[in-house]
Amino acid sequence: MEAKIEFILSGTITSPKGFHAGATYAGIKERADDVLDLGILFSEVPCVATALFTTNRVKAAPIILCQQRLRSERATAVVVNSGCANACTGEQGLADAAEMADLAAKGIGISPEDVMVASTGVIGLPLPMERIRAGIEGVVLSIEGGHDLAKAVMTTDTCAKETAVATAAGDSKFIIGGVAKGSGMIHPNLATLLCFLTTDATVDIDFLRLALQRAVDDSFNMVSIDGDTSPNDMVLLMANGLAGNETFTESSEQAGAFQQALNQVCLYLAKCIARDGEGASKLIEVTVSGAPSVAEARLAARTVVSSLLVKAAVHGNDPNWGRIMAAVGRCGVEVVESKIDLYIGNICLVSAGHQSLFDREKVVGVLRGSEVPISLQLNLGTATATAWGCDLSEEYVTINSHYTT
Amino acid sequence: MEAKIEFILSGTITSPKGFHAGATYAGIKERADDVLDLGILFSEVPCVATALFTTNRVKAAPIILCQQRLRSERATAVVVNSGCANACTGEQGLADAAEMADLAAKGIGISPEDVMVASTGVIGLPLPMERIRAGIEGVVLSIEGGHDLAKAVMTTDTCAKETAVATAAGDSKFIIGGVAKGSGMIHPNLATLLCFLTTDATVDIDFLRLALQRAVDDSFNMVSIDGDTSPNDMVLLMANGLAGNETFTESSEQAGAFQQALNQVCLYLAKCIARDGEGASKLIEVTVSGAPSVAEARLAARTVVSSLLVKAAVHGNDPNWGRIMAAVGRCGVEVVESKIDLYIGNICLVSAGHQSLFDREKVVGVLRGSEVPISLQLNLGTATATAWGCDLSEEYVTINSHYTT
Repeated sequence: MEAKIEFILSGTITSPKGFHAGATYAGIKERADDVLDLGILFSEVPCVATALFTTNRVKAAPIILCQQRLRSERATAVVVNSGCANACTGEQGLADAAEMADLAAKGIGISPEDVMVASTGVIGLPLPMERIRAGIEGVVLSIEGGHDLAKAVMTTDTCAKETAVATAAGDSKFIIGGVAKGSGMIHPNLATLLCFLTTDATVDIDFLRLALQRAVDDSFNMVSIDGDTSPNDMVLLMANGLAGNETFTESSEQAGAFQQALNQVCLYLAKCIARDGEGASKLIEVTVSGAPSVAEARLAARTVVSSLLVKAAVHGNDPNWGRIMAAVGRCGVEVVESKIDLYIGNICLVSAGHQSLFDREKVVGVLRGSEVPISLQLNLGTATATAWGCDLSEEYVTINSHYTT
Repeated sequence: MEAKIEFILSGTITSPKGFHAGATYAGIKERADDVLDLGILFSEVPCVATALFTTNRVKAAPIILCQQRLRSERATAVVVNSGCANACTGEQGLADAAEMADLAAKGIGISPEDVMVASTGVIGLPLPMERIRAGIEGVVLSIEGGHDLAKAVMTTDTCAKETAVATAAGDSKFIIGGVAKGSGMIHPNLATLLCFLTTDATVDIDFLRLALQRAVDDSFNMVSIDGDTSPNDMVLLMANGLAGNETFTESSEQAGAFQQALNQVCLYLAKCIARDGEGASKLIEVTVSGAPSVAEARLAARTVVSSLLVKAAVHGNDPNWGRIMAAVGRCGVEVVESKIDLYIGNICLVSAGHQSLFDREKVVGVLRGSEVPISLQLNLGTATATAWGCDLSEEYVTINSHYTT
């Protein structure tokens, strides 16, 4: 089915019908100017909901809570704070997460079981519950509140990350919105982040689950900042059905349009996260084609985009293609050196494993750009994948040497 | 059997009987002051020899050459250059590596088949063969030449890495020496480096092979600088038998002493490499105990020592123990958060998954040291492993942004 998918100007998580949000400064983060650190997202009607969670064995209290609550496959609200991860906080952490949900539920007038909780920030500190209690009381919800929520989840992020797309497919019109935070501890499975996605489409839960996994596989799971994975990662998708369409299922005519729209929102947010990696000055996009399988294409693309030596070379505008070859050589895919072609932008640096005659200054020109596309043709098969990351700068180290202090 | 193992003052690769070495400045590296970039190691009599090679699918020409030649399990000499890796250089690279061996063999007066070749430096450039030809002619071999060889393999290393130990076990006396280079592209399997090990002991080739694998598993394979692996890694062990002992085999009374001595040389060199990681200001030693298996203890220790966020926190003297918990949580071992104890130095920061009351300033004091010991007790089993790495500094990025240019 032909579908029309358009990004909404200043679109955010409250762009779909019936979603309200708001945020406040509760004093969890230390800085005070224009800072928000506590937010609530709310749907006028209960949503079907699904989420993907961190694969870290050390799971933050809100993750444990949400994993339990989402067995019901429904959610009506989310309360989220930045500045403190509520991770490695034991029984007290679980009690604090539950209390956050209780307080938000009470304020809104819904059941605590329908409130999800998320936290991001420093690991190991207890939540400052006095401040959180006062903060939750101060949150005002509105359909313009999405932007504030996007700000409230930021930690070392330098900009809010949010978008929404409007889709028309046949008789159905619906919107998908999303906010995300990233910056540090970003690595595939599950690209370590917080992301909330909302839609007013009516979607069958089985299809919703499938669609989210597919969208994340090609977006957040293909982003790497530093190879670390946080105990707090979560991508939550809530569908409230207020667009009034017939329920989308895997076999609906509109299933493809919904998947495409969801993919676009996730991809947009994933690229925002890569571009805004801690200390990053540019986005690196690595495409591997000619791989024997999609899994191998993904593995190769992620390995190259994660290589510190590649990231540092891109930072220095250094056409050090040998590091790209070395990274793909160690990725675990049975690559054949003499078959590999390597491009930076559209300039061929390596052809069949041999250095091409290329104009070094032109390559430096590409590397100086804000987006650096690197592509590798393995010439072993037909599978392709793309991964995103950022350059490694001195500033990354500076930020991460002094985060808690 | 009781054995006495002692480090030799200023010991090096020519400390064992019958080994000669020499080096020269051939003009492969750009700087000229006190720089050596081409060396030869030679044994008066043919050696039994074994090596471990990079697992990178992109293998440098000298690696391919050595893998072929070492099928004979013998070697008499090694010729090595720094400044150019002779990797991703195709057929010409293989011809150049073979010519390096031919020239060295001719100068010494032995068969080219008994000469191993190693290169380290920038990937993708052809060897400057004119300079290498002239250089090899200029190398003067002597029993004092070990130190020069150690200098000739350096790239971004800030110091030469070499040692030797003298061992007395029963009637047998023998020496094991070694030189290594490291700094960048250092990661387990096979801790990406060049290392040449010599001994005057007489050792059965099957035991020699086993002993090298065991020594490397606990040393070079437990070192991580940046997660990258080079196409040029090689650890070569040559035994010339001039100590005159009865041949050591796996079942010899002296087998344990030989293994211990070899372990000590490898461990010393591995720790030198970790301490001298690019931009490093301190050595990090991570010990994981209470793991279900040695493989899992190794995996956990390596993951923590490789975590960029842990490395950056140690650099900033920041007791950010949550990052250590997050790293061990994602390492792939089925850790149980509520069982983990965590120490920095001998200060307990986490007990049974909960933050202890600890003196923050005392922990900062440990972090300010030149060696930072981190230990994790998983309380799941009895296996232990230790891994070494270094802090991540702004200088790492600076070095690696401008290496080829």
